[in-house]
Amino acid sequence: MTEIDLLIIPRWLVPVDSNESILEKHAVAVHRDSILEIGPADRLKTKYTPTQTVSLPDHVLIPGLVNAHTHAAMTLFRGYADDLPLMEWLNDHIWPAESRWVNEKFVKTGTDLACAEMLKSGTTCFNDMYFFPDVVAKCAQNAGMRACIGMIVVDFATVWAQNADEYINKGLDVRDSMRHSNLVTAAFAPHAPYTVSDQPLQKIATLSDELDCPVHIHLHETAHEIEESMARFGMRPIERLDQLGLVGPRLMAVHMTQLLPGEIKTLSERGVHIVHCPRSNLKLASGFCEVSKINESEINIAIGTDSASSNNNLDMISEMMTASLLAKGVSSSPTAMNAYAALKAATMGGAKALGLEEKIGSIETGKQADLCAVDLSDIASQPVYNPVSQLVYSASSRQVSDVWIAGQRLLESGALTTIDEEQVKADTLEIGNKIKKG
Amino acid sequence: MTEIDLLIIPRWLVPVDSNESILEKHAVAVHRDSILEIGPADRLKTKYTPTQTVSLPDHVLIPGLVNAHTHAAMTLFRGYADDLPLMEWLNDHIWPAESRWVNEKFVKTGTDLACAEMLKSGTTCFNDMYFFPDVVAKCAQNAGMRACIGMIVVDFATVWAQNADEYINKGLDVRDSMRHSNLVTAAFAPHAPYTVSDQPLQKIATLSDELDCPVHIHLHETAHEIEESMARFGMRPIERLDQLGLVGPRLMAVHMTQLLPGEIKTLSERGVHIVHCPRSNLKLASGFCEVSKINESEINIAIGTDSASSNNNLDMISEMMTASLLAKGVSSSPTAMNAYAALKAATMGGAKALGLEEKIGSIETGKQADLCAVDLSDIASQPVYNPVSQLVYSASSRQVSDVWIAGQRLLESGALTTIDEEQVKADTLEIGNKIKKG
Repeated sequence: MTEIDLLIIPRWLVPVDSNESILEKHAVAVHRDSILEIGPADRLKTKYTPTQTVSLPDHVLIPGLVNAHTHAAMTLFRGYADDLPLMEWLNDHIWPAESRWVNEKFVKTGTDLACAEMLKSGTTCFNDMYFFPDVVAKCAQNAGMRACIGMIVVDFATVWAQNADEYINKGLDVRDSMRHSNLVTAAFAPHAPYTVSDQPLQKIATLSDELDCPVHIHLHETAHEIEESMARFGMRPIERLDQLGLVGPRLMAVHMTQLLPGEIKTLSERGVHIVHCPRSNLKLASGFCEVSKINESEINIAIGTDSASSNNNLDMISEMMTASLLAKGVSSSPTAMNAYAALKAATMGGAKALGLEEKIGSIETGKQADLCAVDLSDIASQPVYNPVSQLVYSASSRQVSDVWIAGQRLLESGALTTIDEEQVKADTLEIGNKIKKG
Repeated sequence: MTEIDLLIIPRWLVPVDSNESILEKHAVAVHRDSILEIGPADRLKTKYTPTQTVSLPDHVLIPGLVNAHTHAAMTLFRGYADDLPLMEWLNDHIWPAESRWVNEKFVKTGTDLACAEMLKSGTTCFNDMYFFPDVVAKCAQNAGMRACIGMIVVDFATVWAQNADEYINKGLDVRDSMRHSNLVTAAFAPHAPYTVSDQPLQKIATLSDELDCPVHIHLHETAHEIEESMARFGMRPIERLDQLGLVGPRLMAVHMTQLLPGEIKTLSERGVHIVHCPRSNLKLASGFCEVSKINESEINIAIGTDSASSNNNLDMISEMMTASLLAKGVSSSPTAMNAYAALKAATMGGAKALGLEEKIGSIETGKQADLCAVDLSDIASQPVYNPVSQLVYSASSRQVSDVWIAGQRLLESGALTTIDEEQVKADTLEIGNKIKKG
């Protein structure tokens, strides 16, 4: 009998492997921060002496969800300006509000709020892009959450930096300060082709190669973006990024609603990752990301919620559902992105995009113990013929009961263990009231 | 001081009126089954002596949601056959399973399960179409829920009736037996143009006129339906129904994903009601109902979930969100179907479709006290700038705390008062296990 920290025995175990397995009567042995073994529950019970055994008799255990595109702090703008076109929403509402309200305290409170919401809905890792990535990193570490912080870059001055060089240098400083973290990694995060000029993009391409560091960018989000690029640069954004050396396996291209067949081919050949944000694309009427065609080209697809001000939540379970339903609607094929494929995109897809596929994204021996349990005893999940169908097409994120990250139990029967939820609500109310009063 | 049964004091009160009001510091006075008065909380507190006062300090109070298209009993097939095309799903899975499993007990259990789910997610009235409408009516009455039962008609024999005449007669018998009910009404429910021939449709048109009774039908659900109608009848289904006398203000036309501009004009002129089922249309890849164009023509739009076997839930809050987001995506306009419009479709839209707009659909003096409270203190609803935005774009149905129908509190702080939830789960498990074993 080997002593281990934790044995989890769920009703169903969905490892998210290439066989699309759904295991019953299986358990997961966890020691320290890692998955030691997956196997039949009866065998593991006789093999190990766990300090803690967690039985989840009505639950499906899945890999922690990876939210591949967030602006976590913007959760403070949830519902602040709805039902508006993208550029009006940005130019007349979000950007003015940001320039007025965003500071370190705002980012701290907004990110704490986002982490609380994400943990309670089963997300264990988020890929962020926002000002004060140092604060975002600290919030994630304090909560025990995994995050890829964005070394944000825009051409114009903000409260975080004055010019592209300063953005890049400050970002790299934050990245360096996190280099020993097991939880926090970093990506270059040039905001979009229309907010970052050639010179900094080229510099980012070089640094990304040298440091083997991912690049996180909004790309081909709207038809307007393409038109503007044609007018300014005489080419579409993807072509421009390609000329600048950015189109490769380190690129996380977010949105991608406007793609020509030749572009899909290029993205596939270069191993680019597409981050699909279906609810944000719908809400801002940005266009449709043609997941079905992208899938045929074997491009890796991750799923992101985008910010809670264009969604309006950070609910990856709802986002999987929308991704799957929308893929069917847009392709006119009800077989497009089935439930397991949606779950795969929301876990392994995100892990691959972040270059973390050896570490997270599936329940496998040796990987980090990033796990999420969803209680399917809810009346709205009955009866259960297939737990993955129930998870993607029926479940609410409120059925998430337990979450572990690197073996630490951050959500226990629905209660957060590392975040003071009432304090976060109080801090949110204070800032929200200020913003409301203008 | 007048004695009344109930005073409800919510944080926000959204009556769903033509001014799109969002009231604060207001209360609703309820006596017996009706709304007696809406007014400033302080004034009503001094005017009335309520037997019960319910304070809802973090909640938005809305009219009970009207699910305008269900096959409630099919909740037992939730997740039974996913990711399949409509006709294959019907022909090879759902219809064979129905002919094998559907009987009175199935309909009782499935409808109880559906009622439990609907009440817990804020639905107070559902418009059903299924076999054994007598059983559906009894389930609704036992639960205290409002329902419009469907007098289902198809050409072929089933466990409920042998031929069209028998369907119609049995349906009318059920309708007659419910004529004194305050909760249950009835509609003719010819399944679809492709399953009901001209003669019974004509008879239904005549009876609908004579009895002033609504007609509930799947219409223009898929391109395939149109093609088949062109081949069989030499005309599109709407034209055929028009020739048979069915296209008028009593018609609830469900789905409507295939509409020509001329058809939209006709529907508008005739006062037809469209029941939009966005999640079902997406999941079965049936096509898009162009809500934005329909809205321009001032056609009444209601929202339905369709059955839980093509959705896979009966969650009207999620359905409002999908309706609103999809309207924006499909019309390329982020201003399409704003949050209040979605709420209106899910309440007054349904009430109008059912011919019940004098009785339900809004919080107004003299209307039935069909009310739903949603708790916005959830971390994923913070901060609250606009409670209607939070309700439609952020909230989960799990935040529904209290539901009243005709003044009776059927959900109290999340607990059902008229349905034994554990018994329903046990009955569901029994039938679900049988179906799973084949």
